Amino acid sequence: SANSALNLSQDDFLYHFGLSRTSVDLEKLFGDVKFVCCGGSPTRFEHYAKEFSKDSGLPVSENLSRSDRFVIYKTGPVLWINHGMGAPSLSIMMVETLKLIHYARATDVTFIRLGTSGGVGVNPGSVVVTSGPVNGELKEEHVQWIAGKKVIREARLDKRLQQDLLAMGEELSLPVVSGKTLCADDFYEGQMRLDGYFCDYSSSDKFAFLRELHEMGVRNIEMESTCFSSFTSRAGIPAAIVCVTLLNRMEGDQVTLTKEDYLDFETRPFKLVTAFIRQQLSI
Amino acid sequence: SANSALNLSQDDFLYHFGLSRTSVDLEKLFGDVKFVCCGGSPTRFEHYAKEFSKDSGLPVSENLSRSDRFVIYKTGPVLWINHGMGAPSLSIMMVETLKLIHYARATDVTFIRLGTSGGVGVNPGSVVVTSGPVNGELKEEHVQWIAGKKVIREARLDKRLQQDLLAMGEELSLPVVSGKTLCADDFYEGQMRLDGYFCDYSSSDKFAFLRELHEMGVRNIEMESTCFSSFTSRAGIPAAIVCVTLLNRMEGDQVTLTKEDYLDFETRPFKLVTAFIRQQLSI
Repeated sequence: SANSALNLSQDDFLYHFGLSRTSVDLEKLFGDVKFVCCGGSPTRFEHYAKEFSKDSGLPVSENLSRSDRFVIYKTGPVLWINHGMGAPSLSIMMVETLKLIHYARATDVTFIRLGTSGGVGVNPGSVVVTSGPVNGELKEEHVQWIAGKKVIREARLDKRLQQDLLAMGEELSLPVVSGKTLCADDFYEGQMRLDGYFCDYSSSDKFAFLRELHEMGVRNIEMESTCFSSFTSRAGIPAAIVCVTLLNRMEGDQVTLTKEDYLDFETRPFKLVTAFIRQQLSI
Repeated sequence: SANSALNLSQDDFLYHFGLSRTSVDLEKLFGDVKFVCCGGSPTRFEHYAKEFSKDSGLPVSENLSRSDRFVIYKTGPVLWINHGMGAPSLSIMMVETLKLIHYARATDVTFIRLGTSGGVGVNPGSVVVTSGPVNGELKEEHVQWIAGKKVIREARLDKRLQQDLLAMGEELSLPVVSGKTLCADDFYEGQMRLDGYFCDYSSSDKFAFLRELHEMGVRNIEMESTCFSSFTSRAGIPAAIVCVTLLNRMEGDQVTLTKEDYLDFETRPFKLVTAFIRQQLSI
């Protein structure tokens, strides 16, 4: 399903990574990649890469990105790339990572998004392994606008991978939850927070919406899941989303964790996903 | 039009800036702000702030953001904040900046987005001062999804500010252009590039779309304009968008500028906007 024109072009500049096909030996650098771990924050992904290096004994690369838009770290067959916030930013990282992997001739690659999220009726610190993402329309779809026309893409994740990650979470005694994930296009109104700069709805509108979400099986809200699921399934790549919840939106809108709790919670998706990766790769 | 609940809450944590109302004296730090300059890249905005400091003699602050999501620099009455890529990321920066300005009791504030873009039928290096933004549907609107329902917002910019910026550009002999701006939700398919990982359309589809854009008055494509225009006009804040074009999409899809041209082009929106700001503030 990859663009057939990719193989024709002599060179290709992955603009937001600052890497071009001819300036770097992509096959040598990235040919062995088996897992791409991604998430919003650049410093968190630098930290994750360094922690994984400590845990596994695999050396960690310097930041391989030559642009300030994203960071790329590599620990053996595992890449750590941040994608910024929201579907458009993620879509750029996804396209350039898929091209990078294509040129590197990496095979049997799995993508996992490790993120933070707002919980819907679950305790803060819960680790939601997404069963299926829904967009702002509450459909399991990702919408693109191409040539002025609406294009609807399926947004599906890998069921077996989800089950394997849930099983690993239970083995590690992490508070894992299987549930749908709402992909919002903003942090405030799209998630019906009452503390944004604009707020045209009431507190009871907010709670009615959260109850509706909960009844349809949604357990958390973030800003990338439908796009991530659509791009990976369209590329034929198994993918999963593992997000910790930083608050229960049924109880508030502000993230007011202590530094200690924040660091503990932020580490949970990492613990789960890296235990799974090390099992899969026998490292 | 600001959320009336804002004044009631004892504290408010601007999560993606890492700043809370009670931990920082927002009024003392930000009460004198008159201009908010924003754009995608964090390092570019650090650079812009430092250059403005050199040019104006106003001291530049350290990075005032306590989060890795955005950077905030201050030079006297001018803020420099990056917003990442795409409308969702921008929307977070906009809400938290509007709240910050609200708590700081700053008055008569103007927002200007300084960015890079793809040109439509204009030479690389052109500086497009947006007359009006259009979304993927080719409408002058910003779409939000709230409570599962589509909410359509007007996306308008300040006409007089646009005219003043065009006049300043001409005074400086910069290649300024007045035109509409397409706000795409991705860099590849949404802009009909032929060099993405996915490409289900033909080269002639692409050129037909670019011609359609050109005929309706669109001169450049970026990823934030409708959201930016909607949020500022809804807040009653005059705003403008000044983007340099890095390529002419009628001639290609790849950004292949020399480092020298890139640095020259990247500086043009800065030159125009800071000359205008210094004129307005008599500094």
